[in-house]
Amino acid sequence: MKKIILVFVLLVLPASLQAEEQSCIGCHETATPAAITQWQGSAHFPSVGCSDCHGTDHERMRSGEISVTAHTCGNCHQQAFSEHASSKHSLGLHTGWGCTRNMPDRNREECKFCHDENSSLAKSKVQCARFLKQTGEMRAIGCNRCHEVENSCQSCHSNHLTDLEIVRSSRICAKCHMGPDHPQWEMWETSLHGSLNMTMGDSIGPSCQSCHMPQGSHDVSLGITVTTGGNDIPLEKATVEREKMLDVCAKCHARDFARRDLEVADKVRQQANDILKEAETRIRQIGDQNLLEPSPSERPKHPLSGNTLVLDSQMLYEDYSHLERLFFKMKKYDHAKTWKGAYHQNPAYTHWYGNAELKMDLVDIKAEATRLEKQALLMEGGGSTPGKVDDRDELERLTDDYRRGRMSEQEFQEARKKLLESFSGDGK
Amino acid sequence: MKKIILVFVLLVLPASLQAEEQSCIGCHETATPAAITQWQGSAHFPSVGCSDCHGTDHERMRSGEISVTAHTCGNCHQQAFSEHASSKHSLGLHTGWGCTRNMPDRNREECKFCHDENSSLAKSKVQCARFLKQTGEMRAIGCNRCHEVENSCQSCHSNHLTDLEIVRSSRICAKCHMGPDHPQWEMWETSLHGSLNMTMGDSIGPSCQSCHMPQGSHDVSLGITVTTGGNDIPLEKATVEREKMLDVCAKCHARDFARRDLEVADKVRQQANDILKEAETRIRQIGDQNLLEPSPSERPKHPLSGNTLVLDSQMLYEDYSHLERLFFKMKKYDHAKTWKGAYHQNPAYTHWYGNAELKMDLVDIKAEATRLEKQALLMEGGGSTPGKVDDRDELERLTDDYRRGRMSEQEFQEARKKLLESFSGDGK
Amino acid sequence: MKKIILVFVLLVLPASLQAEEQSCIGCHETATPAAITQWQGSAHFPSVGCSDCHGTDHERMRSGEISVTAHTCGNCHQQAFSEHASSKHSLGLHTGWGCTRNMPDRNREECKFCHDENSSLAKSKVQCARFLKQTGEMRAIGCNRCHEVENSCQSCHSNHLTDLEIVRSSRICAKCHMGPDHPQWEMWETSLHGSLNMTMGDSIGPSCQSCHMPQGSHDVSLGITVTTGGNDIPLEKATVEREKMLDVCAKCHARDFARRDLEVADKVRQQANDILKEAETRIRQIGDQNLLEPSPSERPKHPLSGNTLVLDSQMLYEDYSHLERLFFKMKKYDHAKTWKGAYHQNPAYTHWYGNAELKMDLVDIKAEATRLEKQALLMEGGGSTPGKVDDRDELERLTDDYRRGRMSEQEFQEARKKLLESFSGDGK
Repeated sequence: MKKIILVFVLLVLPASLQAEEQSCIGCHETATPAAITQWQGSAHFPSVGCSDCHGTDHERMRSGEISVTAHTCGNCHQQAFSEHASSKHSLGLHTGWGCTRNMPDRNREECKFCHDENSSLAKSKVQCARFLKQTGEMRAIGCNRCHEVENSCQSCHSNHLTDLEIVRSSRICAKCHMGPDHPQWEMWETSLHGSLNMTMGDSIGPSCQSCHMPQGSHDVSLGITVTTGGNDIPLEKATVEREKMLDVCAKCHARDFARRDLEVADKVRQQANDILKEAETRIRQIGDQNLLEPSPSERPKHPLSGNTLVLDSQMLYEDYSHLERLFFKMKKYDHAKTWKGAYHQNPAYTHWYGNAELKMDLVDIKAEATRLEKQALLMEGGGSTPGKVDDRDELERLTDDYRRGRMSEQEFQEARKKLLESFSGDGK
Repeated sequence: MKKIILVFVLLVLPASLQAEEQSCIGCHETATPAAITQWQGSAHFPSVGCSDCHGTDHERMRSGEISVTAHTCGNCHQQAFSEHASSKHSLGLHTGWGCTRNMPDRNREECKFCHDENSSLAKSKVQCARFLKQTGEMRAIGCNRCHEVENSCQSCHSNHLTDLEIVRSSRICAKCHMGPDHPQWEMWETSLHGSLNMTMGDSIGPSCQSCHMPQGSHDVSLGITVTTGGNDIPLEKATVEREKMLDVCAKCHARDFARRDLEVADKVRQQANDILKEAETRIRQIGDQNLLEPSPSERPKHPLSGNTLVLDSQMLYEDYSHLERLFFKMKKYDHAKTWKGAYHQNPAYTHWYGNAELKMDLVDIKAEATRLEKQALLMEGGGSTPGKVDDRDELERLTDDYRRGRMSEQEFQEARKKLLESFSGDGK
Repeated sequence: MKKIILVFVLLVLPASLQAEEQSCIGCHETATPAAITQWQGSAHFPSVGCSDCHGTDHERMRSGEISVTAHTCGNCHQQAFSEHASSKHSLGLHTGWGCTRNMPDRNREECKFCHDENSSLAKSKVQCARFLKQTGEMRAIGCNRCHEVENSCQSCHSNHLTDLEIVRSSRICAKCHMGPDHPQWEMWETSLHGSLNMTMGDSIGPSCQSCHMPQGSHDVSLGITVTTGGNDIPLEKATVEREKMLDVCAKCHARDFARRDLEVADKVRQQANDILKEAETRIRQIGDQNLLEPSPSERPKHPLSGNTLVLDSQMLYEDYSHLERLFFKMKKYDHAKTWKGAYHQNPAYTHWYGNAELKMDLVDIKAEATRLEKQALLMEGGGSTPGKVDDRDELERLTDDYRRGRMSEQEFQEARKKLLESFSGDGK
C-alpha cells in the first residue's frame, strides 16, 4: 500500500510542493508543533505533504469550512475506503448527518453524506429524531463527534499519525462504543477475551479488531447477524454472516462450541425482545386510555411523527411522559446490554446490567401504569362536594382551552398554577 | 509442582498416548489452531496430552456433554484444588448450581457440585431463587458463566495456557467481580492500591491476588470477616480472619494503622445495615397494610418461599412491587458498594456510589410508601362519606399535632401506623 | 530541586540522625518492610530520614494523632507547596475539613486547614452541608480520603516513593476524580486523548497532567474558566484562564480549532444550566404550594440553612422529598457530566450520561410535580359520586372474580381494560 501511495503521490505532486510545504512548516512548527512532529514521524513524510490533504485555501481551513474527509484519504487508500463505505460505520453516520438540513449552521460538505451530487434523494432512509431535538452544539460534540466516523478516517486513525498500534488497540473503539446505549468497550474489557488481551496481547486474547476487522478489513459489519439501523437483518443474510463470524471464532475455539455459544446469545436476545414487548403493550394500553401525562397531543411535535406515541427506534428521551421515559431506559439501555453482553461473553452485562434491570424496568412500568389508572379512576370519581367539582371543572375547562389553542403554553401554566394554589389555599 | 505433574504423568500415561495425540493434532491444527499452539507453548507440553484432560470420547466432547472440570486438574494440582474447594469460590458455585435439578437441559455432571455420589442431601444449604426464575440460556451465560468457578479452573486460568502472568493480574478477577452487585474490580482499579499497581506493578501496588491469595493460596476466603452466602461470619472466626488479613496489610503498612482503617470499614458496614433496616421496616409496614401492588398473594409464587414477602438474600428482581424493586437496588447494589468500597479503600464507591445512593434509596422508599398509603386512603373513599372525612380529619389532626411538636417523631409514626391500619381494616 | 533538598537537609540534620534512623529501621524492617524498602529506593535516601518527616514522638504516631502533612514536605519542596496551596486542590479540602469543629473526634491539627493560628475566622467561606450529615467514619473514608489532598502530598505521591512515574499517570487522579459527581477519569480514559495516551504514551496523547499541570505546575486551577466551590469564576479571570488553556492546546492543535471546541463546550454548559433552571423552577412551584413530602418544616434541620428548601450547592442527598432527590441526581450528577464531558471531549458523557439523562430527569421531575398536584387536589376534594362508587365496585368485583380464579389473566386484563375505558370515556 505504501508503495502505491508513493507512486501516486510522485505522479500527482505539483512542482511547487517543496515551496508550499516550507510555507506551512514555517508557521506551524510554532503554531502546532506536535502536528508537524507527528507528520514528520509518519509514513506520509516526506512524500505526502500538507496541501495534499489540506489543500491550499488557508482561510477556509482556519474557519473550519473545509476539512480532511475520508474521500481525501480514499484517493490513495482505496480498498480501506470502499470496505468502510459499505459497512455499518458508513450507515451509522447517515443516521446522524441525515438531518443536517435542519442545522442553521450546517456545512454544505455534509450534504454529500446523504445525497448524491445535485440530488435531493437521501442515500439512506435512516433519520434520527433524537438528533433533530438537540442544539447545534450538542449535535456537534454529543452526536457528530462519533457519527463523523463515515467521513473522517481521523476518527480512529487520529490526525497525523500513521502508526497502526493505535488503531489495533480496542481502546480506540472505546471512544464511541461505550456508555449506557452500547457499552461494548466495557463489556469487552471485563470479559475473558478482554482480560487475556490486556495482559497477554492480541496473540492470546482477541481485541475488538480481531473479531470485527479480521485481517484488517474495514467492513465492521462482517459477521453481524442482528439489527442494523433499527431493522432486523434478513435471515438469509444473517445465516451467511454467522458463518463468517464462526470462521473468526474457529481460529481459537472448536466451531461447534462457538456455534452453541452464539446460539445461546440468539435466544437471550429473543427472550429480551419478549420482555420488552410486554412493557410496550402495557404502555400502549395506557396510551389508548389517554392517560399518558402529558399525552402526545399535549406535547411539542415529534420531529418525524408529530403528535403520536413513538416507542420505536425513533423514540425520544424528552418531551414525553414518565412512563415512556422508563421505557426508553429499558429499550435503549438495558435491552441492548442484555443481548450485546451475551454476544460479547460478559456475564455481568448480560445478567446484572441487562436482564436484572430489564425485569425491574418491567416492574416499574407496570407500577406506573397501575398508578395512572388508579389516579384516573379517582379523578373521574373525585369531587365529593359541589364546590370541589366546580374547581375541577374549572381546571378541565382551562386544559380544554389550552388544547384548543385558545391560550399559549405560558398563559396556561400561569393560569393553572394560580388555580391550583387557590385549591391548596384552604386545606392541608 | 511441575516436577510432580511430570512424574505423575509419566506413571499414568497410556502407551498409546503418542498415537492418540497425533490423531487429535492432525485435525485440531486446522480446527482449533490457537488451542494447539497454546498447548504446545504451555508447561503441559509434551507430557500432558489432549486425552489426559479431555478423555477420548470425541462425540460427547463435541456435544458438550463432557468437559474438563476442576477435578480433572485436581488429579495433579492437589493443593490448589483443596484450597479452592474449601473457599468462597467453591460455595459461590453451589449457589448457582444448587438449583440445576430444575433445568430441563442440565448436565448430570452438575449433580456432583451439590450432592455426594448417590445422595440427595445438598452439600450446601444455599439456594438461589433468582437463578430459578431465569431461562436456561440466561442461567448459562448470565449465572453459570461466573458460578462455574468452583468446578472449572479455566474460569481463571483459561483453557490451554499455563502462563501465570494471566492469573496474577487483577484483570482476570474483573471477569466476575464487577458490576452493580459487587464492583470490586472497579473499586480496586480506581483506588490508590490499584493505581500504584497499574503504574508500578505488584511490588509497589497490591493486586487482588496480593491480598486475597497471598503466596498464591487458592483459599480466597482468607481474611474475610463479613457475610458469606448471605450469612454473617461468626465473631470468633471473624476475629481470627481479621488477624490473617492484617498479616497481609503489615507487609506495607503499620499494623495499627491498617487495623484502624479496617475498623472504620466495620463501622461503615454497621451503619449501612441500620439504614437498610429502616427501609425494610417501612416496607413491611406497607406489606402489613396489604398495600403492595401487586401483593404477594397476587404474584407468581417465589421459587423458595411461595406467596410471601421476601426481602432477604433470596429476594427476586422481578414479579413484585415497585417498592420492593427500590429495596432490591438499595440492598443488593448500594448497600454492598458502601461497605465493600470502605474495605477496598475507595472513597467514591463508599460515599457516592454507596452512602449517597443508599440514603436517596431511603428517600424514594419512604415517598413510595406514603404515596401508597394516600392512594389507599383515597380508594377507600377519599373522604366522600362522613366516616371517611372523620378518618382523614383524624390523620390531619395527628399530623398537625406532630408539626406543632406535641408528639415525638416516633410517637407520630406509631399513632399514624395504627390509624392507617384501622383504615385498611375494612375495605380493599 | 533534589540538590536544594540535599543541601537543606545536610544543613539541618541533627547529629543524632544516624542513631535515630537505626532505631526506627531496627523494628520497621519487620513491622513495615515495604515502607523501608521504598524509602531506601527513593531520592530521600539516605539524606532525608524517618524523623525528618515523622518526628520522634512514637506514641502519637501510633495513635494517628500526628501525621506527615503538606507543610512537612513544603519545608523542602517550597515551589510545589505554594502552587498547590493557591489551587482548587487547596480549596477542595477546605470544603471537606471546614466543618470538623462539628466532629467529636476531630484532630486539632485540622483547625489549621481553615483557621490561621489563634483565629476563629475561616480562611474559606466554603462549608459542606453533606459532610455535616455524615458519621465520623463516613467522613473519614467517604469524604476526607479525597479532601485530605490539600494537606497531604502523599494523597497523590504515595507515602515513601519519590518515583515521578506514579504522579505523571492519569491513574493517580482517578483515585478522586471519578464517580457519578465528576467522572473525569472515565471521561478521559474513553476519549481520543485518553486512548492515544494509554496506547502511545504522554508524547502522543495528553494525560490529566499534560493539560492541568503543564511543566509539572502544582496549580491545578490553571486554565479553569468555570465554577469553583459552587461559584462562577468572574469573566475577566475566566478570559485570562482560557488563554492559558489554549496555550496548552496549541502544543498540538491549531489555536483557532481548539478555541472553537472550548466555545462549543461553553455553550453546552449554558444550555445545561437552562434545563436545570427549568426543573428548579418547577420544584419551587411545588414548594410554594407546600406539596413537598416531607415539607421542609417536617424534616430534620438542614445543617446550614435549617428548615428551608435548599437546591443550591449545599443541597443534601437525604432527609427530603422524592422530588428533591430527583433534582439532586440531575444537578450533581447529570448536569456535571454534560458540560464536563464536553470540555473533556467525550461524546458519550456529554450526550448519553449527560444530556439524555438531564432531559429524562426533567421528564421525571415534571411528572412527580404533576402527581403531587393531582394528589393534593384529590386529598382536598377526594371521594366519589354514587355512580362512580358503582364503577369502582364493578372493578373490585372483577378483581375478586379474577383472584378467585373465575377468569384467566387474559380475560381479566381485557375486561379490566374495557371497564377502565368506559370510565375515561366521559371525562378528561
